[in-house]
Amino acid sequence: MKLYDSFRAPNPRRVRWFLAEKGDHAVEIVNLDVFKGEHRAPDFLAKAGLANVPALEMDDGTTITESVAICRYLESLYPEPNMFGRDPKETAVFEMWLRRVEMMLATPLMLAVRHSHPALAALETQIPEIAESNRKSGARALKIFDRQLADHEFIAGDRISMADIVAATAIDFSRMAKFAVPEELSHAVRWYEAMMARPAALAGVKS
Amino acid sequence: MKLYDSFRAPNPRRVRWFLAEKGDHAVEIVNLDVFKGEHRAPDFLAKAGLANVPALEMDDGTTITESVAICRYLESLYPEPNMFGRDPKETAVFEMWLRRVEMMLATPLMLAVRHSHPALAALETQIPEIAESNRKSGARALKIFDRQLADHEFIAGDRISMADIVAATAIDFSRMAKFAVPEELSHAVRWYEAMMARPAALAGVKS
Repeated sequence: MKLYDSFRAPNPRRVRWFLAEKGDHAVEIVNLDVFKGEHRAPDFLAKAGLANVPALEMDDGTTITESVAICRYLESLYPEPNMFGRDPKETAVFEMWLRRVEMMLATPLMLAVRHSHPALAALETQIPEIAESNRKSGARALKIFDRQLADHEFIAGDRISMADIVAATAIDFSRMAKFAVPEELSHAVRWYEAMMARPAALAGVKS
Repeated sequence: MKLYDSFRAPNPRRVRWFLAEKGDHAVEIVNLDVFKGEHRAPDFLAKAGLANVPALEMDDGTTITESVAICRYLESLYPEPNMFGRDPKETAVFEMWLRRVEMMLATPLMLAVRHSHPALAALETQIPEIAESNRKSGARALKIFDRQLADHEFIAGDRISMADIVAATAIDFSRMAKFAVPEELSHAVRWYEAMMARPAALAGVKS
């Protein structure tokens, strides 16, 4: 089993972090240099269908993209610690929070970076208003998560789940857009500091 | 079990369609009039946490939002016909296609409607360039799905899955942005006509 990874993009980091929380695993990491266009090479495209990383190639050759789909599959192989829920009800609550994180926080912060960081100016026409509007959306979303974190240690409840990994990687990436957790959101600050202090936060991160 | 629904929004329709494919069920549908702000009523907010529909209230009072999380939970109660995959590998492939549909097609088409339809002008500042750019993104994504549909009856493979329901409801909604499946994408046209001819396509749709 091979994970096609890229050290500088935020979505592959979700999977590296997830695997590090799981501990021992038999996934070989293959780093693609997206700045050299290695994710557009014909043999990779033939497997993954799209020029997307991360991608997981299973032992039978089936290859999937989409970080959350990859992690849910890996959880079937490495069930502990559980990150997607132990029964249908908990799975539903965890997925609700994961999707809120993705749509209300991770996507806006990614757009804020793409529309503001000089190194990404070649990828698209950067519009400062879009960066600013998405930075504000991210800050608004964090108020909602802060309220949840006032009563719970983690975003989806009292143990870590995929929602926390996606949220923490999004916030760390958003430093490239000069974003940070607003300090008045004390519960979110406490949670974010605890997340970044986990050993798994360092998985594949170049210092 | 109660599904808080709203007849005029696209995401609740995913759940109505999904339940109609399942056939008999014990879910009571409660329609909220979002134009009257019924999704902002304090008793609803206390349950759902956010002013979002659809929301599913379980018999023990646990309430979840997010249409896909709701459908995955309902599949645990009503397993047939299967829409999320029968084993971890199929679940991974189905979720990959579902997420591609959501991010590459459904979100752009929703933004195209929000930024162009006169009835929604009160919700936000409409920017014609955003509508047009998202209409183009939707058309580009349909080329990818058209290639997949050249070899498969449905988007994730040879039977219907959640990806098809989300894609079809998104395209039908996008008529409000004067969007349609480009007729040269013959496989996508064939698939869309077949989807809209299913009895479940009519679930809760006012004529």
